[in-house]
Amino acid sequence: MAVGHVSLVGAGPGDPGLLTRKAIVRLRAADLVLYDALVDERILRYARKAQRFFVGKRAGRHAMTQPAIHALMIRAARRGKRVVRLKGGDPFVFGRGGEEALALQHASIPYDIVPGISSAIAAPAAAGIPVTHRGLSSAFLVVSGHEEAAFASAIAQLQPHGVTVVVLMGLGRSAAIASLLIDRGWSRGTPAAIVVDASRPEQQVWRGTLDRLAADTVEVEGFGAGTIVIGDVVTIGLKSADVAQPFRAAN
Amino acid sequence: MAVGHVSLVGAGPGDPGLLTRKAIVRLRAADLVLYDALVDERILRYARKAQRFFVGKRAGRHAMTQPAIHALMIRAARRGKRVVRLKGGDPFVFGRGGEEALALQHASIPYDIVPGISSAIAAPAAAGIPVTHRGLSSAFLVVSGHEEAAFASAIAQLQPHGVTVVVLMGLGRSAAIASLLIDRGWSRGTPAAIVVDASRPEQQVWRGTLDRLAADTVEVEGFGAGTIVIGDVVTIGLKSADVAQPFRAAN
Repeated sequence: MAVGHVSLVGAGPGDPGLLTRKAIVRLRAADLVLYDALVDERILRYARKAQRFFVGKRAGRHAMTQPAIHALMIRAARRGKRVVRLKGGDPFVFGRGGEEALALQHASIPYDIVPGISSAIAAPAAAGIPVTHRGLSSAFLVVSGHEEAAFASAIAQLQPHGVTVVVLMGLGRSAAIASLLIDRGWSRGTPAAIVVDASRPEQQVWRGTLDRLAADTVEVEGFGAGTIVIGDVVTIGLKSADVAQPFRAAN
Repeated sequence: MAVGHVSLVGAGPGDPGLLTRKAIVRLRAADLVLYDALVDERILRYARKAQRFFVGKRAGRHAMTQPAIHALMIRAARRGKRVVRLKGGDPFVFGRGGEEALALQHASIPYDIVPGISSAIAAPAAAGIPVTHRGLSSAFLVVSGHEEAAFASAIAQLQPHGVTVVVLMGLGRSAAIASLLIDRGWSRGTPAAIVVDASRPEQQVWRGTLDRLAADTVEVEGFGAGTIVIGDVVTIGLKSADVAQPFRAAN
């Protein structure tokens, strides 16, 4: 039997309109889709003829270990299947896409990478916040807030106020993240925003300062994928995307 | 006459397969498309019924000033036109999308933002380089190399070796950029790569070190859009996307 193929595909931030053409082509052709928690049901519907397995994290627990995901992809491809490994955002932005691609390469499975729209840029954009803006920010740092040590180490590299900071997967630790920045010399009044479920109908935007962020952990419902943006670009004052925003606070 | 609409649309890195569905919808409906230098002809073809104007930079000169672009968008929208302002990559990553959105907002023109796949992530990916990778990089900085002062200021914020650095629009200054990093304490052996015309048939990848980069300005032809990636992720050793790479050097 001919060996199959694996595509590591970025599903973007949520809105099916932000899927790429290539992602849709791969989904339509797929025999098997392995998807993560942040992937919208409306996106999975493109994979009409595929078996679908949830392999992500729910209620804090992984449905499948990383080695088990590798083994499943490799086994299916060896049986001639076209596999799509579907990830929220982009596969190479905290998506473990590199590890999965290495595993496929070592097993001599043909694969490709289909980039997706990353929430690191698109979530702020959906709240009307450009990550760069002439005169305000000529660089941005994207960091994961998920692991305390890794976040602290990345932030320790930065001088206060130099660049826009975008924190992915930091929602549950937003107060601790803000406190850490203040401890490292960032001004308490530094503008900050949180965008939850960006680009989805449930999108919510919170705007405030590091000080306010440090005082309170933000609780959200829905998909719960949240992006924190810190820096002067938060104050630019573009309107948000035209979606419901019950959660927006006064600036 | 009813007022029209402006969409600030990201065209992605080049490959028309990396356009989003929403970008295609906007292009098909457009009466007028204002496009930049990095936008591929195959993408413009979606705008079948639109007038197209090149408003970008060619041979170092802007075809149109920024205020003139604003005025043109606003005038066309006031005449009821559907305008697409089409930018390489993402509109909010060094694309002046924020300025254009503000101008539209001040003129009370309805507009929306359609994010695009940014070369900051997709160009390294096309060369098999994930910008984040467990154990190697838990953050990445995206910075423009176009203006010396802005680049120096952003890089001055960083401790050496902390995070992956992605430089957009720095191709013509790659030797100066590498020298600056070395002066600031980055090791001469730090892995570096350059991806030119990422995701296009003409894609070229160079791999080396900061030292080699500092010794020689990289000359390229074609579209000439180049992304520089600096950091340990360059050595991960994933295969590049399946495109011609006449320019790849020994690692």
